[in-house]
Amino acid sequence: MSTMGNSTNIFWQESPIGKLERQKLLNQKGCVVWITGLSGSGKSTLACSLSRELYTRGKLSYILDGDNLRHGLNKDLGFKADDRTENIRRVGEVAKLFADTGLICIASLISPYRKDRDACRAMLPDANFIEARLLEDGLHEHVRQEIQKAFTSLHVLERLKIFSPYLDLISLHSRSYIQPGFTGIDDPYEPPLNCEIEIQQKDGDCPTPGAMAGEVVSYLEEKGWDVYQQASGSNM
Amino acid sequence: MSTMGNSTNIFWQESPIGKLERQKLLNQKGCVVWITGLSGSGKSTLACSLSRELYTRGKLSYILDGDNLRHGLNKDLGFKADDRTENIRRVGEVAKLFADTGLICIASLISPYRKDRDACRAMLPDANFIEARLLEDGLHEHVRQEIQKAFTSLHVLERLKIFSPYLDLISLHSRSYIQPGFTGIDDPYEPPLNCEIEIQQKDGDCPTPGAMAGEVVSYLEEKGWDVYQQASGSNM
Repeated sequence: MSTMGNSTNIFWQESPIGKLERQKLLNQKGCVVWITGLSGSGKSTLACSLSRELYTRGKLSYILDGDNLRHGLNKDLGFKADDRTENIRRVGEVAKLFADTGLICIASLISPYRKDRDACRAMLPDANFIEARLLEDGLHEHVRQEIQKAFTSLHVLERLKIFSPYLDLISLHSRSYIQPGFTGIDDPYEPPLNCEIEIQQKDGDCPTPGAMAGEVVSYLEEKGWDVYQQASGSNM
Repeated sequence: MSTMGNSTNIFWQESPIGKLERQKLLNQKGCVVWITGLSGSGKSTLACSLSRELYTRGKLSYILDGDNLRHGLNKDLGFKADDRTENIRRVGEVAKLFADTGLICIASLISPYRKDRDACRAMLPDANFIEARLLEDGLHEHVRQEIQKAFTSLHVLERLKIFSPYLDLISLHSRSYIQPGFTGIDDPYEPPLNCEIEIQQKDGDCPTPGAMAGEVVSYLEEKGWDVYQQASGSNM
């Protein structure tokens, strides 16, 4: 009998078709690849590229995109610390379900707080949660600095009470992009301490989408996820 | 640019591998079979049986069980009307994602309120939401009446302030089962007006799990979901 949540009479329903049966049908193993990093670091690019790479190998994946989920499952949540935590928790719970179906779930979210990512990791069996951190590249750092400057200037202008229709327009436009709680600007990003994969630029060059996906595919293959194996036979 | 939720700068990320590609890989079409009905009407039984039937046909399904989700995604929610609505909304959103992967998502929840079920239906393209209502059988009605009697008696005893260690024990035990907001006892169940499938006893006999699943499989086949087709070739 469960003592979780708000009820004491909710029993677990066991299905006769479990993860093993589904994995057999799919000819693959379910897991979560959790992509974390600042805005503009290439999370969506990697997620899409990885999904394509896996597809060409006959492997079924699904992208849980943090931004997309804010249009649906998480549309009731904002960007304050508590809401971000709940946002990540829900994505973690859904990612767990996806891994349980046998799919390779690619979660792509800034997920700035270490404790939130670690809570998602703890939901899954060991090795089934693969954290891939994207280090921001030079371009991103440049963009970040410009955003920081604009942010500061707008604050100064507001304090000086200098407004004109032109400035209002800039302010409005910028604010739709630079809102309070923008990770990396006025909200911290806590990098992973021991993530499975870290993707960064080499010799100042950003890796191509294919190269980034290749790093993840290599990791998966190395750890026995058989993602190089082509679909074959009647099970795939 | 989205104006939903609490942010105005959340853009939709399009994946290069879409539902069509995933369905091709799986050799099946994604949809949601939403099973609704009172406690004890056989929702879990049908869900499990249907999952097994589909599996023997090489079709990948996944059960979203309302009770199980209250241990994870929805563990922060209780049983008040608002919480039930949010519970159903989240399950609907997740079911939509599952259908988008190409899986046959079997959602099994009391989901007592019509408007909540209809809101989930509205999340999906037409015909991709298949509502299956289970009508409670004679046994269930008997159980329901007994629960109602116990519930009433406990209220009477409470009002009369008659308590003994023995009565306390009964009360405690019963309350863990009969809590306020028990659908069909002191909370309404609103039956669907136009559901796709209605499963009920025939000539006083309850259908077997296989027969119930058969009714859903027949419906799916009739509507062109190809669930009788055996897995074949390299795509499955």
